Amino acid sequence: MAPEPDSKRSKTGDSPAYELVYWPGLPGRGEFVRLLFEEAQVAYTDTAQDRSPDKTVELVMSHMTGDADAAGKTNPPMFAPPALVHGDKVVSQTPNIMQYLAPRLGLLPKDDEDAAWKLNQVVLTLLDGFVAELHDTHHPIAVGLAYEEQKPEAKKRAANFVDERLPKFLGWAQRVLDSSSSGAGPWLQCGQFTYADLVLFQCVHGTSFAFPKRMAELRRSGKYDKVFALYEAVGQRPNVKAYMESDRRQEYGNGIWRYYAEFEE
Amino acid sequence: MAPEPDSKRSKTGDSPAYELVYWPGLPGRGEFVRLLFEEAQVAYTDTAQDRSPDKTVELVMSHMTGDADAAGKTNPPMFAPPALVHGDKVVSQTPNIMQYLAPRLGLLPKDDEDAAWKLNQVVLTLLDGFVAELHDTHHPIAVGLAYEEQKPEAKKRAANFVDERLPKFLGWAQRVLDSSSSGAGPWLQCGQFTYADLVLFQCVHGTSFAFPKRMAELRRSGKYDKVFALYEAVGQRPNVKAYMESDRRQEYGNGIWRYYAEFEE
Repeated sequence: MAPEPDSKRSKTGDSPAYELVYWPGLPGRGEFVRLLFEEAQVAYTDTAQDRSPDKTVELVMSHMTGDADAAGKTNPPMFAPPALVHGDKVVSQTPNIMQYLAPRLGLLPKDDEDAAWKLNQVVLTLLDGFVAELHDTHHPIAVGLAYEEQKPEAKKRAANFVDERLPKFLGWAQRVLDSSSSGAGPWLQCGQFTYADLVLFQCVHGTSFAFPKRMAELRRSGKYDKVFALYEAVGQRPNVKAYMESDRRQEYGNGIWRYYAEFEE
Repeated sequence: MAPEPDSKRSKTGDSPAYELVYWPGLPGRGEFVRLLFEEAQVAYTDTAQDRSPDKTVELVMSHMTGDADAAGKTNPPMFAPPALVHGDKVVSQTPNIMQYLAPRLGLLPKDDEDAAWKLNQVVLTLLDGFVAELHDTHHPIAVGLAYEEQKPEAKKRAANFVDERLPKFLGWAQRVLDSSSSGAGPWLQCGQFTYADLVLFQCVHGTSFAFPKRMAELRRSGKYDKVFALYEAVGQRPNVKAYMESDRRQEYGNGIWRYYAEFEE
């Protein structure tokens, strides 16, 4: 059952504070969670902002080993950040965090009982497909090795990504926007702005940073006009716009979305 | 709100038939969906069993392009199979399908409102982490190229997977089973058998097929005893056992779980 949305920039009586637990220094997967809070204007703290990097890393690790739950909390230990701490709950896996938050932040339609699985389907395709594959362009062999240790393989994987996979993901997103499940307006869910639109926005933004030439070409092709229209419409929303211009928005670094000129040569 | 579970091996009055849409000839991600139906003994049809391979491929493609929805259905076009057809709904993305099915098949606790996100968290770690990374051992450069076209890179990625990632995933699963959220009994959710146990079962089964020597070593180490105890306990459940011995269970082929002797040399 969908909880009542939290009120603007404040905690309701029953809702505990929200804390995002994520590495400092890059947008990463934490960004999807941040965008939900920022759009909804709901108060949250962010370990990437509020603590020293060392302390943040220590806190993230303690949630991964389960030590942070020693005080009687009964959460499954997480595999990797981001995590959302909400009262005595520690929720991880990005699509799972967003599923938990969206109804609480008013970013999931309440009058359509199919909206939850339809939007989760779109979000999983973006997060565990599009974003995961983009990440592996610079880490095709091992996530534990530096890019510099897998450069020849990375160049091959990146070439395949931009030629085959990127148009495939954008084409699928365009089909979703063409479908009767989208209907009127720029959004993924018929006539309603939802959290999935924020996810697609960040996917286009990050990919445009990582592969600027290729994304410009794809945009000019006109084949994905609805995808880029949604991207522009989300970017113009006042809360998103203010956030993107604030220092709460991290700069791209050595995370998922990286720019390597050699990938576009 | 959780719907009432469907009754055994029959359709209830209001529940339409379940159809799994998946490629023929290998277990693949469709296997996770099949295991839910088989354990719950709920009737389902399976395109991998019931149609000619060509027809199945055609049907899968029509769901991907959205053509199968031409008759006024309002589902977002899927990116890739498996899909679940249930009445006029077409649900895709494996963790999403399982989230949709689990309460309907009685495989999600009804008396714990946190069970849904906790189990989804575990399932996403297994599906979009463990299974996706295992898949990429034989396809590190491009999913659209054959294994034979990326053998040197595959050998590197497989070596890293078995040395670093596989123990990491098993260690995390063991920590979940150690945690107070698991508690009594062999299952991932405190004292209750759920769909997540079926997912971990298939992960261990498939990985043992793909990397038999390494999995035998890891088992002998004793570090993951609870993971293997869960695996054995699921395999001994009468419905799972009967299914695994039936011809409804597909043999491993050129899908996610493949055996290449050179990966363990």
